[in-house]
Amino acid sequence: MTKFKVGMIGLGTVGTGVFKTLRAFSDIEIVKIAVKNKEKKRDIENFDTSLITTNPYEVVDDPEIDILVEVIGGINPAWDYISKAIESGKHIVTANKELLAKKGKELFELAEKHNKVVLYEAAIAGGIPLIMPIKTIMAGNKISKIRAILNGTTNYILTKMDTDGASYEEILSEAQELGYAETDPTGDVEGYDAAYKITTLSTIAFGKRVKLENVYREGITKVRPEDMIKANELGYKIKLVALGNLDENGNADVRVHPMLVSKKSALAHINYVTNSVSLSGFPMGDIAFSGAGAGEFPTASSVVGDILNIAAELSHSDYILPMMRCAHRENINMIDISQTYNKYYLSLTAPNNIGVIGKIGTICANKHISLSTILQKGVSVDNTADITVITEKCKEADIQSAISELNDCTINSLIRVEL
Amino acid sequence: MTKFKVGMIGLGTVGTGVFKTLRAFSDIEIVKIAVKNKEKKRDIENFDTSLITTNPYEVVDDPEIDILVEVIGGINPAWDYISKAIESGKHIVTANKELLAKKGKELFELAEKHNKVVLYEAAIAGGIPLIMPIKTIMAGNKISKIRAILNGTTNYILTKMDTDGASYEEILSEAQELGYAETDPTGDVEGYDAAYKITTLSTIAFGKRVKLENVYREGITKVRPEDMIKANELGYKIKLVALGNLDENGNADVRVHPMLVSKKSALAHINYVTNSVSLSGFPMGDIAFSGAGAGEFPTASSVVGDILNIAAELSHSDYILPMMRCAHRENINMIDISQTYNKYYLSLTAPNNIGVIGKIGTICANKHISLSTILQKGVSVDNTADITVITEKCKEADIQSAISELNDCTINSLIRVEL
Repeated sequence: MTKFKVGMIGLGTVGTGVFKTLRAFSDIEIVKIAVKNKEKKRDIENFDTSLITTNPYEVVDDPEIDILVEVIGGINPAWDYISKAIESGKHIVTANKELLAKKGKELFELAEKHNKVVLYEAAIAGGIPLIMPIKTIMAGNKISKIRAILNGTTNYILTKMDTDGASYEEILSEAQELGYAETDPTGDVEGYDAAYKITTLSTIAFGKRVKLENVYREGITKVRPEDMIKANELGYKIKLVALGNLDENGNADVRVHPMLVSKKSALAHINYVTNSVSLSGFPMGDIAFSGAGAGEFPTASSVVGDILNIAAELSHSDYILPMMRCAHRENINMIDISQTYNKYYLSLTAPNNIGVIGKIGTICANKHISLSTILQKGVSVDNTADITVITEKCKEADIQSAISELNDCTINSLIRVEL
Repeated sequence: MTKFKVGMIGLGTVGTGVFKTLRAFSDIEIVKIAVKNKEKKRDIENFDTSLITTNPYEVVDDPEIDILVEVIGGINPAWDYISKAIESGKHIVTANKELLAKKGKELFELAEKHNKVVLYEAAIAGGIPLIMPIKTIMAGNKISKIRAILNGTTNYILTKMDTDGASYEEILSEAQELGYAETDPTGDVEGYDAAYKITTLSTIAFGKRVKLENVYREGITKVRPEDMIKANELGYKIKLVALGNLDENGNADVRVHPMLVSKKSALAHINYVTNSVSLSGFPMGDIAFSGAGAGEFPTASSVVGDILNIAAELSHSDYILPMMRCAHRENINMIDISQTYNKYYLSLTAPNNIGVIGKIGTICANKHISLSTILQKGVSVDNTADITVITEKCKEADIQSAISELNDCTINSLIRVEL
């Protein structure tokens, strides 16, 4: 039996899961693992420490290794390791969503030049099979819509804010204690992580390259418990949604932001750290996937799946996995957020003058914005009124312009609503 | 550019969807289509009728054809066409769940002998990507549990019975008028269709061959509107569930029957003709898929996906799609339904004697069956009482034995309840 040789860079949570899972596969042999700290205690039974090196280039340059598994994340030094490993003849399996979103083009061009493949099932939605299905069995489709929950940390926080009625800050510290959020939570809570993932996901789904800098991004830090309560009253849940729309002319609208989604939709019921992806296309219609978006073992499932597929094809061909190669030579034309159409949830505090509702209505009407719901609850001791509005579908530029004219009101929240 | 040549047998609903979808792919050419009725009007623009033949062997025997697409269904004559096509050097794409369930072993052995692949994504859950993901990207997993809704007709009927409070017979005729159920609905409503699908699905998920004759099967014809109402009251929906369980010793329990599933589960919310499959395994955890289980275009998506994957690999290798080949040489050891453990929903009509509840309780206790819920509603004019019971987890053989001892009661329904 041919033994395929795997080298790993990184032996953290995901790396450990990969190591343990690969033990069941006798045709795959892990021959070298680069780590930062050689002395760190590993949660692996009968671990052969002679596999370990602190010099990643011992893995990168080893001519015996067929497949390099990169599970350290970030751009530097991961890009240097991966690019050199491709040049020295290795196929790549990575979970590095940031690298894919920022250096995807160079990465796949380099791989193609050297007739190597780069697989990354684990980078998007962890254990959910997504990249390989889209690129293989769903290849006959024109996908035009993506609705996804791609970040477990923010979905955990929003779910807990909803069920406990607590503030963002309270739930964040709780999530940090439980290990669901990092000490510096910026990458998750400001939507960077989800933006990296939807950049790559929309690129492969739409078949042209989406650039990260054109992906609109807004995090969850400004979502208030009051918004959660109001959303519930109105029949919605608030989720951090990563979405992509492709119009008939091939223009793409790709973004990450909090969104009110109807309680009748499947997405509203994806709770805690679960991830979910719904894809609409022709001829397949609507297909939804859900499962664990992170974690030692679910993520390992995807990394190991990629490794096994490379190994299986390496036994039979020098040009492997034709369907899994990058097919995106062109950049997609992107629609700016200001030109998109949405419904909006708007919470504002207005001076309790006679005619304040009328003024809001008039300003909106002048911007071609129809209102479908207006709620005003009592009047505060300071003689202000809290007003909640849900608009009909209207243009982002128009709602932003209307808000700038509501200058005697305090805008508490503006959150988009799923159409 | 190499043009891959496809021959089709069948140009009904699915075949038409395949034909239309493949037009977008310039490297695939449909060269011949066998149909029953040459004169039938086809819903295809600018259809080149010279492609059509009424002799399937013109397709089967054509040495130019690389891939045979079989979309007629049934065992005879499909098996003859497919087996001869393999022998004459063709790869096969089929949507034939009955053939896979009944002749899978011979089919895949024949294909392997001739170094050909048989792909069948469309045969199970229509447009949902399932077979290719399980065999490729999920290959690192040990899957131990399947819960699925695999038949759209029965799910439509049960959904409508639930929402309309109507009887099975009423909704069946409505479904027949709408084209959701066939004139002879037996294959769907008695669970044969779902049994074919779960036979193949559990075979590939569990990695050993499941035999159709060992799959327990029960249809939906005995489900009453009263059961729907009671299930709702108790927090459940009734679904025709196809399920598979693999125990620690490698024994499989595979079956299709109506089941009460908690309203809190995702399966309870899969309505009308939608299909859904949840798989649990290690290391991936729980993964759920949902989408259209049938229909011209969703099914075409899967057929076309299979064709594109064969064509892509044919360009580069003589031994294609190693991961998609049959890996099941052994039969799995099956657990008989009588030896499985379930909860049960039992509806019975008892003579309104003093002590009837006590008698039911005693008979159950003697069989080691604990009751978690007992509901008795009023007393009828004929002095009988309708009693609904939900048991704790107990053995199928024991509940059947208890029921045989309840000889002065009329058993209205016995439906298993998801644990």
